[in-house]
Amino acid sequence: MKRISLKKISKKTGLPPGSLVHIGEQKAEKTEITVFQYDGSKIHEKKIKNIREYIPLKDIQAVTWIDICGVDKVDTINDIGTLFELHPLVLEDIMNTEQRTKIDLYGEYIFIVMKVLSFNEKKEIVSEQISLILGEDYLISFQEKELNLFKPLKERLKSKDCYLKNISADYIAYSLIDAIVDSYFTILEQLGEEISIVENEVVTDPGPMSLNKIHNLKRETLFLRKSVWPLRDVVYNLEKEESALIRKTTIVYLRDVYDHTIRIIEHIEMIRDMLTGLLDVYLSSVSIKMNNIMKVLTIIATIFMPLTFMAGVYGMNFKYMPELEYPLGYPIVLIAMGVVGGSMVLYFKLKKWF
Amino acid sequence: MKRISLKKISKKTGLPPGSLVHIGEQKAEKTEITVFQYDGSKIHEKKIKNIREYIPLKDIQAVTWIDICGVDKVDTINDIGTLFELHPLVLEDIMNTEQRTKIDLYGEYIFIVMKVLSFNEKKEIVSEQISLILGEDYLISFQEKELNLFKPLKERLKSKDCYLKNISADYIAYSLIDAIVDSYFTILEQLGEEISIVENEVVTDPGPMSLNKIHNLKRETLFLRKSVWPLRDVVYNLEKEESALIRKTTIVYLRDVYDHTIRIIEHIEMIRDMLTGLLDVYLSSVSIKMNNIMKVLTIIATIFMPLTFMAGVYGMNFKYMPELEYPLGYPIVLIAMGVVGGSMVLYFKLKKWF
Amino acid sequence: MKRISLKKISKKTGLPPGSLVHIGEQKAEKTEITVFQYDGSKIHEKKIKNIREYIPLKDIQAVTWIDICGVDKVDTINDIGTLFELHPLVLEDIMNTEQRTKIDLYGEYIFIVMKVLSFNEKKEIVSEQISLILGEDYLISFQEKELNLFKPLKERLKSKDCYLKNISADYIAYSLIDAIVDSYFTILEQLGEEISIVENEVVTDPGPMSLNKIHNLKRETLFLRKSVWPLRDVVYNLEKEESALIRKTTIVYLRDVYDHTIRIIEHIEMIRDMLTGLLDVYLSSVSIKMNNIMKVLTIIATIFMPLTFMAGVYGMNFKYMPELEYPLGYPIVLIAMGVVGGSMVLYFKLKKWF
Amino acid sequence: MKRISLKKISKKTGLPPGSLVHIGEQKAEKTEITVFQYDGSKIHEKKIKNIREYIPLKDIQAVTWIDICGVDKVDTINDIGTLFELHPLVLEDIMNTEQRTKIDLYGEYIFIVMKVLSFNEKKEIVSEQISLILGEDYLISFQEKELNLFKPLKERLKSKDCYLKNISADYIAYSLIDAIVDSYFTILEQLGEEISIVENEVVTDPGPMSLNKIHNLKRETLFLRKSVWPLRDVVYNLEKEESALIRKTTIVYLRDVYDHTIRIIEHIEMIRDMLTGLLDVYLSSVSIKMNNIMKVLTIIATIFMPLTFMAGVYGMNFKYMPELEYPLGYPIVLIAMGVVGGSMVLYFKLKKWF
Amino acid sequence: MKRISLKKISKKTGLPPGSLVHIGEQKAEKTEITVFQYDGSKIHEKKIKNIREYIPLKDIQAVTWIDICGVDKVDTINDIGTLFELHPLVLEDIMNTEQRTKIDLYGEYIFIVMKVLSFNEKKEIVSEQISLILGEDYLISFQEKELNLFKPLKERLKSKDCYLKNISADYIAYSLIDAIVDSYFTILEQLGEEISIVENEVVTDPGPMSLNKIHNLKRETLFLRKSVWPLRDVVYNLEKEESALIRKTTIVYLRDVYDHTIRIIEHIEMIRDMLTGLLDVYLSSVSIKMNNIMKVLTIIATIFMPLTFMAGVYGMNFKYMPELEYPLGYPIVLIAMGVVGGSMVLYFKLKKWF
Repeated sequence: MKRISLKKISKKTGLPPGSLVHIGEQKAEKTEITVFQYDGSKIHEKKIKNIREYIPLKDIQAVTWIDICGVDKVDTINDIGTLFELHPLVLEDIMNTEQRTKIDLYGEYIFIVMKVLSFNEKKEIVSEQISLILGEDYLISFQEKELNLFKPLKERLKSKDCYLKNISADYIAYSLIDAIVDSYFTILEQLGEEISIVENEVVTDPGPMSLNKIHNLKRETLFLRKSVWPLRDVVYNLEKEESALIRKTTIVYLRDVYDHTIRIIEHIEMIRDMLTGLLDVYLSSVSIKMNNIMKVLTIIATIFMPLTFMAGVYGMNFKYMPELEYPLGYPIVLIAMGVVGGSMVLYFKLKKWF
Repeated sequence: MKRISLKKISKKTGLPPGSLVHIGEQKAEKTEITVFQYDGSKIHEKKIKNIREYIPLKDIQAVTWIDICGVDKVDTINDIGTLFELHPLVLEDIMNTEQRTKIDLYGEYIFIVMKVLSFNEKKEIVSEQISLILGEDYLISFQEKELNLFKPLKERLKSKDCYLKNISADYIAYSLIDAIVDSYFTILEQLGEEISIVENEVVTDPGPMSLNKIHNLKRETLFLRKSVWPLRDVVYNLEKEESALIRKTTIVYLRDVYDHTIRIIEHIEMIRDMLTGLLDVYLSSVSIKMNNIMKVLTIIATIFMPLTFMAGVYGMNFKYMPELEYPLGYPIVLIAMGVVGGSMVLYFKLKKWF
Repeated sequence: MKRISLKKISKKTGLPPGSLVHIGEQKAEKTEITVFQYDGSKIHEKKIKNIREYIPLKDIQAVTWIDICGVDKVDTINDIGTLFELHPLVLEDIMNTEQRTKIDLYGEYIFIVMKVLSFNEKKEIVSEQISLILGEDYLISFQEKELNLFKPLKERLKSKDCYLKNISADYIAYSLIDAIVDSYFTILEQLGEEISIVENEVVTDPGPMSLNKIHNLKRETLFLRKSVWPLRDVVYNLEKEESALIRKTTIVYLRDVYDHTIRIIEHIEMIRDMLTGLLDVYLSSVSIKMNNIMKVLTIIATIFMPLTFMAGVYGMNFKYMPELEYPLGYPIVLIAMGVVGGSMVLYFKLKKWF
Repeated sequence: MKRISLKKISKKTGLPPGSLVHIGEQKAEKTEITVFQYDGSKIHEKKIKNIREYIPLKDIQAVTWIDICGVDKVDTINDIGTLFELHPLVLEDIMNTEQRTKIDLYGEYIFIVMKVLSFNEKKEIVSEQISLILGEDYLISFQEKELNLFKPLKERLKSKDCYLKNISADYIAYSLIDAIVDSYFTILEQLGEEISIVENEVVTDPGPMSLNKIHNLKRETLFLRKSVWPLRDVVYNLEKEESALIRKTTIVYLRDVYDHTIRIIEHIEMIRDMLTGLLDVYLSSVSIKMNNIMKVLTIIATIFMPLTFMAGVYGMNFKYMPELEYPLGYPIVLIAMGVVGGSMVLYFKLKKWF
Repeated sequence: MKRISLKKISKKTGLPPGSLVHIGEQKAEKTEITVFQYDGSKIHEKKIKNIREYIPLKDIQAVTWIDICGVDKVDTINDIGTLFELHPLVLEDIMNTEQRTKIDLYGEYIFIVMKVLSFNEKKEIVSEQISLILGEDYLISFQEKELNLFKPLKERLKSKDCYLKNISADYIAYSLIDAIVDSYFTILEQLGEEISIVENEVVTDPGPMSLNKIHNLKRETLFLRKSVWPLRDVVYNLEKEESALIRKTTIVYLRDVYDHTIRIIEHIEMIRDMLTGLLDVYLSSVSIKMNNIMKVLTIIATIFMPLTFMAGVYGMNFKYMPELEYPLGYPIVLIAMGVVGGSMVLYFKLKKWF
């Protein structure tokens, strides 16, 4: 997956900066726009097909959240850019879904890029990009496709509960970020479950596949880590930045998100350590297995080589071998063989080889 | 244990921030509240069943310590929140017993989360969460269940000794933190003892179980480390923060706690290094064992293969084999075999193989 | 390659600082100079053979970009130095193509050294050095040889598009840096492809060559890393430096370049982790292969050693061996051998050895 | 040793902070106190048995150094605390000989804890604690038992040499610290000698004991490192701290001590790297040894197995085996065996197996 | 070498600070002093035997460079110390040739210690110490013995070239430092050559000696690293320090030296990474070799064990073994043996074992 993404980025080499080109898979069939407006007492929800339909709504003095699903249409993104006077680089970053998590401060607005992670059917972690533009009294969110993640928030907004009193653009932004960060715990949980499955396998029946699984888990953890680390800086900057766009009451909540981020990072580091430990256990169990194979070989060889030699001696065809004539020669040799073999077994027992 | 905790957290995904949901096992059957009030000359202890019983006590001008055991009742926590005007996120964090150690400064009060660690019957380290709220002249402590840790302090408070003179909310807070930090030494000691047991085992009789034990100890150390590292920042911030809530005389004591924390961290790092060293010794002893097995095999094979070949030669049925007719053929061959075998043994002795 | 470079540098030991000596391979046959001048409305392009031809153009009030291909002629570099009053150390660094990526601020101008990377036919990463001198209204770029990298920019400059309005020396400098940084993505992509080829090989058919390939890839990654890390500081300093030479509008673009640099670095670190993982998988698969060889040996030996012993016993020449006389002796022994061999096979089947 | 120390610390859990309990072995039989007073022209030395004997001396306007050997008597420490108005935590730390190296600034005086290291008869590094209290014109030093380390300094003080002119409390403190730091070089030297012994052993005759020795050296180095690292901060803080207690002329000397500390730390890090390298060499030489054993086995088996098979063929009892009848059959087979064996040996020679 | 140095340092334990004792080997037979004086128009060179000869020259208003070869004479060093009013610790550090690279600022002058590295005949890196004292208009350099390193500079000074115009004490100091730093490139180059020799050996014919060589190279790199790392801080401090002793024009040159230092450090880190990689390749090639040995053994055993067993069966002496009577028994068995052996060989061919 990572290779493909680079392929796409390198295609852009040579284009002037700020060129709008969609990078990434096309995930949504058409762009869907939902506008939430809060006029101080009530929330108005409106689905529109084209951002131009929003223009008459723009002058209403109200906190507005515009949620846009689908970022692959150059026209739509361009229109939004013109309407809200966004920098060309912001538009470029929204359309390039291979961005890393980051925060950019542009005086009039704050631009945030985040990643929503999920497992695909091959148990690989895949990411969707969420871009947020937080202005004085508006918030624009861009999703690659409609995610379930924001539904509970939308429901809460529409219902008449206590949160209605203190709705502000930055609080909605916080709620979205909080939802994304909380979703990482689900990923960690799934990863943890897979690790404990592999752990069981390694302890009970380690095979060549176990190594592959550990390797894959390590890779997924690396990918997860790469996605989450910059998040810490984003939330930290958001919290510390003395921007007029973020109110003091919201900062307390951002601090809480920051705590969650730290916990996620600590968990990822712990998972990495556990995987390294698992690899050690695997490699060691492979070497113990080999040890056991060697033991079996050595025991068998050590018991039968002397016996075979003895049998070989009395299989020689010398004319004058007095033992061969003794009536008790055969049973005596058999007993001698038993004694040699038995003492070998005893020796191994004493050495605790089996 | 760690996996389960994440499962519970991820359940909360989708809830609005500040929702009061108890996360973690229910450890106390009912909430117990103990109030200590110091009116400048005497300590009054009172056990109450409901925090509302405290309301009449609130207006008394006295240093107050409220110790609450059991954090799973939403009502109780909510009542306390209302009474002391606490932020909803503080209440949320108190009930979520999977918090990490942290300190949050809210102008009017300081909120501290700490972990008390202990070994359970499976020799795993488990943690109980302690939350502290330090205000101007009050301290509220929340425990998941009644811990023995605070008993000596309570006894000291009740007895009429020299400490009565300088009781203040921040000094009580310090005493609690000090008790928690000191309890980590007990954990380290137990861990150290287990390590020395495994160390003995690895040196005298390393088996596949030793590896598992080292692996488990590593895991416990990782968990311990994760719990203790943030503690350093908490104590450091508490000491450096120029808050009106912490008096200068108390800061000297906090510096002492900070020193203890550093020592604990250094010990943990040393334990980690020792465990890594132990793993090296284990792996090496496994490989030395294998070496020895190979040696035995090689010695046996190298002695008996030539002998068996010699016996084989004289077991051939050629008509014209002059040696077979010699009367001394048999004893000569036996002697030759002895010479070959003996020189092999000598060779190995010279090579110091045994 | 790295060794050669050092050889050349060490040759310079003993020379006074600021001596102009070309270090590196001679890549361009002759020095080519292209001058772009923008007089506020139009771009004038002029190819000149000698920098002195530029002198009459110097006094025109226009944004000027001088692109110089070939840095091995001491005279040319010296002339440019005199014309633009450059510090001797700057000239020395331009001619020494083994510089590391860096930025030097000299009040009147900024001196930047960067590396353009590409794969040579041996799949080794090789680097070309680009030096930039950014002055008030001029930009001088030095290339070791004509690179395709800057062609798209030159085309854009010549065409009449929207960029003409805000052409400034610093914006051209940014465009060049952006082109170089973007070209790194191509390198990463190629490296990623090679890694996935080797990965396939290691998983399906690991041989001694795989190790060599991993080793070589690691080396290339090390080299790449060494080239890219200092780039971060260069772009960071350029962005943060409150120099009058860089306009505010350009800084926004530099921040974008900085983001790209960070992404490249993260990718390199990820590639390193992947290569380490690959090495682990390789070593483990080698040890698994050895395990299998040992298994085959042990199975064969364990089955045939007892059988050969049994055959040996009945090959002994004792006079009185009653079994030899039994008519059914031979088939019974054959069956006994079958039972022993069969039970050995069964034992290994149960132990899941094959 | 480290485990024991923790046991003792954990015993203190539950005691109120500032409780005076001696932690550590009792090393001195009785407390010995020596007082040096410098009245500007002459040094007066006086041995006293009880610190109370010092009280009349206290009012003399003179630079005073009080050297106390033995820190296990609560009364003595308490008396000193009262006399010099020391903080209870300082007294607690003096008696707890398991402190880490540290510096605490208490306005009126500076409290320093340091470690004197030495090898015991088991070649383990053991540590003695030295505590220093540096006041305006007095220095109090606490040793667990009389160490030889300070003797040269005492001699110098008593003799009439040039140092008499600029005696001050901080200069004496510096001299003590300098003596302690210099003593670390002796430890490093001894450690270095032991390493070079083990190195020799590993190169010439590596055995299972070598690994144990490397492991022990690693452990000692870890312990040494743990003791020395905090020293850097102590000396650094002492040097940088703009305390009135430390004169400018002394700071130059402290900078010198700081340099020594850095060199010691660098040496320790180098020793660690060397030990890691030694472990690599050991493990590799073990694996090379195993390789050689395998070679011997393989050579023997590969030579004799075909030969034994050939002998076996002509040992078969078929009636019609024409070769058996040939008069030259036997010698031909013997020659054939020689050829097979010889070509095997040749093959191994060509493959450079021996 | 490193051990010896410590031995010498530890001898100094117990001496008062500032004691002049020469530490290190005596490298120069007698102390040689060369004085360069630049009176604004011309350079005067004068060789003197005793520093006292310099006293009359001292009052001349001229930039002076005094180059002293040999630092083992206490008297000479003492005389210089008195003449230039140097701190006793500076004199001590000059004579102790086991100093680490460092810079000390003493208001009136700057004291710099550096290391000149070279390979001795055993291909070990050895170091010579250079101490510089940079004053207002004088520079004193101390060498352990006459090094060739400074000769080109002396030549340049004596010749009448452009540099004469801006001679100042700090510029000469810079020139010396530059010469030393440049000499490190030669060391790196030699190290690089040795590495590529060992690399070749490891790839073509790895033996036990290769490991030793890698180990030695690692050690040399460690030593080199230890010498170069502090250099960075020295040059950085020199460049950043706003000292009146260093002119602005010189700072530009120091920045260039700083760049070189960074490049050297990067190279050393790269060499370390390469050596680690080489070790991996070596260990892996050893394990591949072992694999091949095991394969040969297994192939031989697997082919001949069944054949020997078959021969054994027909070597049994049962009376009633019908096959033995068949005229074609013998050739049939031989063919059967050929089939069994051949199919084994085929099986290994299919498994790509050879």
